[in-house]
Amino acid sequence: MSPSHDRTNPPDSSRTPAANAELALLLEVAGTPKPGNVDRRRDFPDLRFEHFLAGAVGARPGLERAERGEAIGATFERAVEGMAAQRGGNTQFGSLLLLVPLVAATRAERELDHQTARSTVEATTVEDSVGFYRAFDHVDVFVDDPPADLEPLDARRGKDAIPALEERGITLYDVMDASVPGDDVAREWVTGFERSFETADRLAALDPARSATDRVASVFLSLLAERPDTLIEKRHGETVAADVTDHATDLLESGGLETVPDRVDAFAADLVDRGVNPGTTADITAAGLFIALDRGGFDL
Amino acid sequence: MSPSHDRTNPPDSSRTPAANAELALLLEVAGTPKPGNVDRRRDFPDLRFEHFLAGAVGARPGLERAERGEAIGATFERAVEGMAAQRGGNTQFGSLLLLVPLVAATRAERELDHQTARSTVEATTVEDSVGFYRAFDHVDVFVDDPPADLEPLDARRGKDAIPALEERGITLYDVMDASVPGDDVAREWVTGFERSFETADRLAALDPARSATDRVASVFLSLLAERPDTLIEKRHGETVAADVTDHATDLLESGGLETVPDRVDAFAADLVDRGVNPGTTADITAAGLFIALDRGGFDL
Repeated sequence: MSPSHDRTNPPDSSRTPAANAELALLLEVAGTPKPGNVDRRRDFPDLRFEHFLAGAVGARPGLERAERGEAIGATFERAVEGMAAQRGGNTQFGSLLLLVPLVAATRAERELDHQTARSTVEATTVEDSVGFYRAFDHVDVFVDDPPADLEPLDARRGKDAIPALEERGITLYDVMDASVPGDDVAREWVTGFERSFETADRLAALDPARSATDRVASVFLSLLAERPDTLIEKRHGETVAADVTDHATDLLESGGLETVPDRVDAFAADLVDRGVNPGTTADITAAGLFIALDRGGFDL
Repeated sequence: MSPSHDRTNPPDSSRTPAANAELALLLEVAGTPKPGNVDRRRDFPDLRFEHFLAGAVGARPGLERAERGEAIGATFERAVEGMAAQRGGNTQFGSLLLLVPLVAATRAERELDHQTARSTVEATTVEDSVGFYRAFDHVDVFVDDPPADLEPLDARRGKDAIPALEERGITLYDVMDASVPGDDVAREWVTGFERSFETADRLAALDPARSATDRVASVFLSLLAERPDTLIEKRHGETVAADVTDHATDLLESGGLETVPDRVDAFAADLVDRGVNPGTTADITAAGLFIALDRGGFDL
């Protein structure tokens, strides 16, 4: 039973949105070199490639609920619960926070676009916030201290924050809105998934003869050069985040992966060694991959 | 939204058999170094890691049918059809031929074992053979010339062989039985999945502190040293297959991956360069991973 190399089978359009979302998670983590992230060639000591594989598989039942149109918050909680069924901890929390509404938005009667995505997140309710907060009980997520008036809504309180959410009538969209600036996953929610769609366009523009892992890495580097990664900002401060952006810009200006692959590789290893992890950029890459797969804009 | 390193979350036992089978496919291809196979670090020119990721995701609806107890043959066809929705061609045909009955066998009222697996395959029907033959219409699979009396049943005839199957009343178990010796995937069907269960036991015996990709590679090497790979035999002849077995044995006797990782790596690269692909050994590795995951014998 053998691999055969002489077939060029057209991609099967029957892959469902949930399957495309799972595949987006897998292609994202496989993309290499992705400076500072787990990728096909790099692990952190306790957070390894296999944890992302198990995280993606585990998230699927939640993604299928989104596909069926179930509530965003409960769906997100289910996806995170499944994702967390491995010993690496938080692998794809931020990615799922983008993928769940995007999968839900595919139920609109036209192609996934800014407007369908925007309507989906704007329609979220207080109940969706409750699901989001419950998700924090399944996994440790790095979150900044909130401003004093929002302390009762600190996400780290998990389900203990639910009474305050309900009392104040805070929807999941409101939660995201309050997290901008400083969290570029939340920013996607309030901008109609601006960078996610831009990422999908960039992926679609690349030569499909290049390997998928290479295309993902190219687009990841372009995103990293574009805006400071907000996870790096939270964990290491603005200076470190700005340095990473500058370094990525410098590599891009030298031609990026196609021209200076060894320098990109060295940068990737250096960030992993220092524990500097542009996780938000990875989340947006996954969201862009999903949109591209959904639209038939990512051949593989 | 950050990876967190301080959590040791117990594996979630809610992963379904179909999810475990998909994860087994992903962990199998990720295992590295796996001499002569696509792995986390190696691609063939036209058959790359991403094709296996898409193959695993695409196979899931078929695996879910197996989980629900639908007929093995039609279920296998659906799994192969989904697997083939990428441009790499045949990625996991043989693995699915093992995983589909194993997933189906989890419906028995006791733990998956030789007997439940054996009963499942022995219960296959002529209709299951029909599904199996239809699967060949979705993807090119390397198959040997059959003996003259079996020419009407040549699997490469795909659905054109169906009248002969029906006329002769050949079940899928019969098809597998007729393929032994010379096809060690088929051999699993007639031995109660002997090597698959042995593989699961070996995986369970390894130190779970080692990465999953490393544990998979160790067990793969032990299988490769044990019996000539029947895909290599079919494509390159018995001498090449025997040489590969001898080389693997030599590496194992020198301590294998833990002692001579560079030599295992060099062997892996050499086989890929020569296009010598022990695909059957990879199929059995995937089956063993599934059994281990199903029994809770593979921590990750």
